Amino acid sequence: MRHIRLVVEYDGTGLCGWQRQANGPTVQGHLEAALAKLLQHEVAVTGASRTDAGVHARAQVASFRTERPIPLHGVRRGLNSLLPPEIAVHDAAVVGDDFHPRFSATGKLYRYTVLAAPDRSPRWRTRAWHVPEVLDLAALCAGAAHLLGEHDFAAFRAAGCTANTTVRRIDAIDLVDVEPGVIAVDVRGNAFLRNMVRIVAGTLVEVAQGRRPPAQVAEILGSRDRTRAGITAPAHGLELLEVRYDGTRRPTFGAPPSLV
Amino acid sequence: MRHIRLVVEYDGTGLCGWQRQANGPTVQGHLEAALAKLLQHEVAVTGASRTDAGVHARAQVASFRTERPIPLHGVRRGLNSLLPPEIAVHDAAVVGDDFHPRFSATGKLYRYTVLAAPDRSPRWRTRAWHVPEVLDLAALCAGAAHLLGEHDFAAFRAAGCTANTTVRRIDAIDLVDVEPGVIAVDVRGNAFLRNMVRIVAGTLVEVAQGRRPPAQVAEILGSRDRTRAGITAPAHGLELLEVRYDGTRRPTFGAPPSLV
Repeated sequence: MRHIRLVVEYDGTGLCGWQRQANGPTVQGHLEAALAKLLQHEVAVTGASRTDAGVHARAQVASFRTERPIPLHGVRRGLNSLLPPEIAVHDAAVVGDDFHPRFSATGKLYRYTVLAAPDRSPRWRTRAWHVPEVLDLAALCAGAAHLLGEHDFAAFRAAGCTANTTVRRIDAIDLVDVEPGVIAVDVRGNAFLRNMVRIVAGTLVEVAQGRRPPAQVAEILGSRDRTRAGITAPAHGLELLEVRYDGTRRPTFGAPPSLV
Repeated sequence: MRHIRLVVEYDGTGLCGWQRQANGPTVQGHLEAALAKLLQHEVAVTGASRTDAGVHARAQVASFRTERPIPLHGVRRGLNSLLPPEIAVHDAAVVGDDFHPRFSATGKLYRYTVLAAPDRSPRWRTRAWHVPEVLDLAALCAGAAHLLGEHDFAAFRAAGCTANTTVRRIDAIDLVDVEPGVIAVDVRGNAFLRNMVRIVAGTLVEVAQGRRPPAQVAEILGSRDRTRAGITAPAHGLELLEVRYDGTRRPTFGAPPSLV
């Protein structure tokens, strides 16, 4: 039985998220259907991150098992011809039986993109949260600094989150100048609670709008109270850029833009 | 009678191009319908470039006339609330009666984007031409060099092009490293024949694929024969970045990405 790891890119716009659903197209559902067609047997696909509806991924990691002796490039090319245009596979590799896309992951990098401009932009409408105010980026960075390190992030998780522990470690929050009027907040950490990056983004944007002082981020963190944090920023601004294993940068597809 | 100039951005994916049509949504059609609603009279909109179906624009320039005393920010905001998500207006300004978006233009900048990667990419599917081969970018640049300056571009125009003269001037062709695997060819010139940028892009990509030697670009140009040039690259890779007037950079929206 071979265990095969995939690197998957998707535009989450028309998808109901990662996780298989009875109604509505999902990434897991599309992958399982395409693999079943390709391999002629039922396939269960596991993913590193259960992204929400509308969330994008540049390098989601997933795995499945098969006894078919299909070559790896055949898996990649076959999937790319069977999958819909909004999903593509960039790598297929054999991994050990004990590999688990989620539990073996040692880190993840998410990007939250904000269009800070007076008018909406057609080019960014499915990829950035439009905030019409001028943002104070120095305040945003000052607020973000309070989140670095290992903390109890209970204040930054969705009501429905069922994680056993709410302690997580954020290794870096980088502000990226994507193009004039478009900024991205890159959040790197060991693991994330449900909606954590979106609540962090929503809170930091409120700081950048001048609605909260940067120091309040530390108070919110200390409160462990979700109602103290900012809004959950819209799903379409979020993108999973990378999943790390054993401290290495692999597997990843491409590289972050040169401005990072 | 006030003459008002607009700067318009659009994602051409679902549109039938700039020019008004009886069947199918167009940028001109949407602008005229929105302005008629806003101003309560019929409006004729003129554009700087009659982009094809699927072609995008970051800063198309258009103008119209009205006697309504509506403030300029009301025009911009009103249009942005009436226009569909794939079209937005970034500027509205009063211009002289003799201004003409197309005939007053002294230069235009188009970008043609190519995804040079083994697999297709969901993120780029509506914005870049996917070419699975490795491209020889040095050969592409060598080929492009033959096109710089004033030439008869008859070999690089669509069959249906009705321009009186086929002499045009290309001021610059820049190769832009957008991100790993994604390159853009920025073509700046005084004016362009129908499909000229797409035929230039199609020809230069064939050079980069090793199918034609770079020096052949000079021969094609000299032949004035459309059948000698390369294919017309797909519309969705093309974007109008800027229209210049009187040698200035205005009006433009934003700026080219920092990597340019």
